Amino acid sequence: MKIRSVLSAAVLAVAATFTSAQAFAQDTFTLKMAETWGPNFPIFGDTTKNFAKSVETMSNGRLKIRIDSANKHKAPLGVFDMVKAGQYDMGHSASYYWKGKVPETLFFTSMPFGMNAMEQYAWFYHGGGMELMQEVYGAHNMLSFPGGNTGVQMGGWFREEIKSLDDLKGLKMRIPGFAGEVFAEVGVNPTNIAPGELYTALERNTIDAVEWVGPALDLRLGFQQIADYYYTGWHEPATELQFLINKKVWEKLPADLKEILRVAMRTASYDMLVLSQHANAEAWANIKKDYPNVQIKQFPQDIFQAMYDANKKLLKEASASNEQAARIVKSQQDYLAQSRAYTDISERAYLNTMGTVE
Amino acid sequence: MKIRSVLSAAVLAVAATFTSAQAFAQDTFTLKMAETWGPNFPIFGDTTKNFAKSVETMSNGRLKIRIDSANKHKAPLGVFDMVKAGQYDMGHSASYYWKGKVPETLFFTSMPFGMNAMEQYAWFYHGGGMELMQEVYGAHNMLSFPGGNTGVQMGGWFREEIKSLDDLKGLKMRIPGFAGEVFAEVGVNPTNIAPGELYTALERNTIDAVEWVGPALDLRLGFQQIADYYYTGWHEPATELQFLINKKVWEKLPADLKEILRVAMRTASYDMLVLSQHANAEAWANIKKDYPNVQIKQFPQDIFQAMYDANKKLLKEASASNEQAARIVKSQQDYLAQSRAYTDISERAYLNTMGTVE
Repeated sequence: MKIRSVLSAAVLAVAATFTSAQAFAQDTFTLKMAETWGPNFPIFGDTTKNFAKSVETMSNGRLKIRIDSANKHKAPLGVFDMVKAGQYDMGHSASYYWKGKVPETLFFTSMPFGMNAMEQYAWFYHGGGMELMQEVYGAHNMLSFPGGNTGVQMGGWFREEIKSLDDLKGLKMRIPGFAGEVFAEVGVNPTNIAPGELYTALERNTIDAVEWVGPALDLRLGFQQIADYYYTGWHEPATELQFLINKKVWEKLPADLKEILRVAMRTASYDMLVLSQHANAEAWANIKKDYPNVQIKQFPQDIFQAMYDANKKLLKEASASNEQAARIVKSQQDYLAQSRAYTDISERAYLNTMGTVE
Repeated sequence: MKIRSVLSAAVLAVAATFTSAQAFAQDTFTLKMAETWGPNFPIFGDTTKNFAKSVETMSNGRLKIRIDSANKHKAPLGVFDMVKAGQYDMGHSASYYWKGKVPETLFFTSMPFGMNAMEQYAWFYHGGGMELMQEVYGAHNMLSFPGGNTGVQMGGWFREEIKSLDDLKGLKMRIPGFAGEVFAEVGVNPTNIAPGELYTALERNTIDAVEWVGPALDLRLGFQQIADYYYTGWHEPATELQFLINKKVWEKLPADLKEILRVAMRTASYDMLVLSQHANAEAWANIKKDYPNVQIKQFPQDIFQAMYDANKKLLKEASASNEQAARIVKSQQDYLAQSRAYTDISERAYLNTMGTVE
């Protein structure tokens, strides 16, 4: 009896040692993530779901992401505050939504006449962009990472063709954010309307034009049934969503799970750009087939020039009294100048060449 | 004494149980990878090194990649055979190098007048490309994954300007592979010369022109010192390298390490495209500053049209007696047609718009 009881104690002690070592190596974490989008939102929602699944598989279940969509947390534009406060560990949203709260967040999504997706990724990862973004978000107890790109967003659906700057004066258009401010400078009357009411507003002439995203997401809202003119983009050439993560949560993760999270976010963001290319091309083929009324239009050069000048003026104003904004704008503009000079002789030249053969 | 020896035996038995469970969960693997490139080859070598480091960190050391560069294994163009035979577990190379051995491998790198990088990734991941690639490589006991993209490759350095099809007749040019065959159809005399001898060959007029990659890699070879005309690209619009992995090696990995490997390869391939954009833009800025003699040129439309027709003819021939090649070519051409229609109204329209403002 005595031997057996000593034995039991010894077994328990040894077992305890191993269990504790095991537990240390295999601590599990569940991160609650709030996304700005509703459940099953196409492309954006695919991005977060695939990300969560991949993280769980790579970590063999040690790191789980529990996604709450907007119907659950009821605060689509509260993601910044909820992650900052630690109410959620992570968020999936877009940086420019926080511009009213923190002006410098504006610059990490996409800027009018700015970088395309490849140029912007190059700026983030090799041109100082990530450092600037962490500087802005670090002050709010968070880290921000690229969270998926839509590619070039279309310039919007118009019921009448725009032939001159005069046609823009007083035009009522759904276009939110900084691009709306640029449009306002050339006489447009920008408004914001909830997505569910956009179709009716356009149909009843409450608005004359609507900017949404691109063929894949626009098609679902039905604008092609009531507007003939689909304009090419200038205002969001590479809309990048974001993953937010509370800094304390990030810091408590072991090195392997940090790297799994970093790489999964990075792949998810690139993957969304690729999925957007695919889904937009498919949707555009369907629009062309089913809605021959739809014509692709480009604004005349004098409109582009007026908007380009308005954009420059607004950026100058945003930089004037804000040292951090000034640094970010300068970093982006310098990087764009260098990067675009190469894009022009590679990607752009190639696409234009292909336009000349048949 | 007796108690203690029983105790020891019990401790060892319990320890054995735990160690075995632990070992099962934490089997470690070292995969030997042969790369086609020499050690520290820029961009390509960064890609494999970052990939290996990330895999090791994500797996907490359970999966290690040991990279052998060409100076070690001495068989840069033997990577296919070595991975197939299991002499190496993985390879990093380019699919079109194997065209002499397995003709259908030609199609998974980049094709003249073909898809750009985003279109090609969309084809791989959403248009059936990965399935076709695994069909081709599966027959050789391997899996192949995208391994890093250079973006649009430049059309090459020419010592004399090319003004007409006549100027191409008899022109001696370093341009290997399928693009060389297309050039041969319009009268060029394509040759392949080892990289180390290219500069001297161009300087001594052994060749009249040389195609290499793009500004970042071309700059190091010095062509800008002896050739004034740098032509825009048409022949490799999205050169995608490849990770090869022996199928038996892949199959013995547990699910978490498989996913770590899959995601690390995927991120590495996208990351190389972004790094290429950055490095090419930087190198192009340097060339412009230091070599004002260098002019960007585009072939006249009739040359493009002649090469486009030659390319179509060669693809038709490649498809004629090869059912698998025919299916791949058709899949790529259908996908390109749909995808490019959207690229034209998004990325291309945007880049051209930006060319009209100042």
